[in-house]
Amino acid sequence: MKTPQEIVYLMMQNDAFSQWMNVEVQKIGAGFCTVSCKVNSEMLNGFHILHGGISYSLADSALAFASNSYGNQCVSIETSISHTKPAKLGDTLFATCEELHRGKTTGIYEVKVTNQDQKLIALFKGTVHVSEKKW
Amino acid sequence: MKTPQEIVYLMMQNDAFSQWMNVEVQKIGAGFCTVSCKVNSEMLNGFHILHGGISYSLADSALAFASNSYGNQCVSIETSISHTKPAKLGDTLFATCEELHRGKTTGIYEVKVTNQDQKLIALFKGTVHVSEKKW
Amino acid sequence: MKTPQEIVYLMMQNDAFSQWMNVEVQKIGAGFCTVSCKVNSEMLNGFHILHGGISYSLADSALAFASNSYGNQCVSIETSISHTKPAKLGDTLFATCEELHRGKTTGIYEVKVTNQDQKLIALFKGTVHVSEKKW
Amino acid sequence: MKTPQEIVYLMMQNDAFSQWMNVEVQKIGAGFCTVSCKVNSEMLNGFHILHGGISYSLADSALAFASNSYGNQCVSIETSISHTKPAKLGDTLFATCEELHRGKTTGIYEVKVTNQDQKLIALFKGTVHVSEKKW
Repeated sequence: MKTPQEIVYLMMQNDAFSQWMNVEVQKIGAGFCTVSCKVNSEMLNGFHILHGGISYSLADSALAFASNSYGNQCVSIETSISHTKPAKLGDTLFATCEELHRGKTTGIYEVKVTNQDQKLIALFKGTVHVSEKKW
Repeated sequence: MKTPQEIVYLMMQNDAFSQWMNVEVQKIGAGFCTVSCKVNSEMLNGFHILHGGISYSLADSALAFASNSYGNQCVSIETSISHTKPAKLGDTLFATCEELHRGKTTGIYEVKVTNQDQKLIALFKGTVHVSEKKW
Repeated sequence: MKTPQEIVYLMMQNDAFSQWMNVEVQKIGAGFCTVSCKVNSEMLNGFHILHGGISYSLADSALAFASNSYGNQCVSIETSISHTKPAKLGDTLFATCEELHRGKTTGIYEVKVTNQDQKLIALFKGTVHVSEKKW
Repeated sequence: MKTPQEIVYLMMQNDAFSQWMNVEVQKIGAGFCTVSCKVNSEMLNGFHILHGGISYSLADSALAFASNSYGNQCVSIETSISHTKPAKLGDTLFATCEELHRGKTTGIYEVKVTNQDQKLIALFKGTVHVSEKKW
């Protein structure tokens, strides 16, 4: 059976968009993880703040890593996000995923996206289907 | 008062991430819009399918354009997305935003993301706050 | 194989809370349904308008009937609701459920709750797990 | 300025549906609260388990009390709920509301509905609009 670290390595190694975002895995374990990335100029929207799609993408990666960490492949069913504070050029964002529920076929996770000052940028919730397929 | 076309032009012209995604506005009017983009290799995840963050970003842009089109600035409060079918390298995606409700201070929008074969890739719902600030 | 009508009959016959609400099935078919109920004084909240839990319950019943109508038992995974307009004592509410997506293991449904004047009271979205268990 | 206890008293005193549910306020303070109710036979659905609308209603009341507790009237914009475990006749349910974010015009709250054995029955998230109207 693979460790959470091995599974995340497999998920990350060919993930072109996460590489484009320069996603770094800060912490990973069974059912939780923290990933980070730095806001660069290509990630901004027309208001010169971070495009909401980037904070979503970072949170979605955190969800994928935390939910797959047990060894069963998990597929996202529904995700929601609220953007609570704008992020700016040069900010470092941290997406911390916590498990709220893990049933036989369904898992529910919460991701808090914070900046380098521990301010909440976005709040994300994700529901995954736990398949029988192993990593 | 600005037209929907003028407002979207203002929103798009400095939107670096939408430009990175090569987002094109296909249709825009009061409360609706269709945007499109083509899946390139930098948008893929570790399974060699489209990263969910890209379909989210495209849908989120459609929400922004449709909700701001009346002339009042709108800010996203909550968005949710379900990924119903994988998108692949070379696919062309269309995000079509429809208004479900427009109140004095709140609007609710649905975005369907489809591919070139009219297959549903993702289903997105967004709630915005309608501010008094004008474009 | 049971018809949608037979399945809904089985679901309704011992459903004490739907009976308390006086839920009536107006229309039922494969993947859709309309149910109705009348707002009585026990359903009101402290503002003398309909408690949001009643519109949720009505929409949730519509989701259950529409998603189970094909013959496979379906279990709700995630539901969301926005209350767009207050309902009042004596109003008749209609919850109309439409299928947005039906995959092998997941279905997504939208329910519009309207009053007797066709005004939108609430907008509901539900995701269900399609099990292999038959009615 | 009214205390959280006074505000909840005002909200509860004419709330017919919460009275029908026998909702009891266990704890209330600025931005949080716990309410409870007991599952009776009128609250069951056709599977002889608690109708999802009752857990929603209990969670929604917890959201209303916690978000209004500061003195500004708050209106629910969007709520979502996942039902994680069936509740049964005779169970006592506790809905505990915690504040995840409180901005100038928007608040985000999480409600965990648990039974007498501290098992998670439902997970609820609510977004409210903070109005300028005072209690």
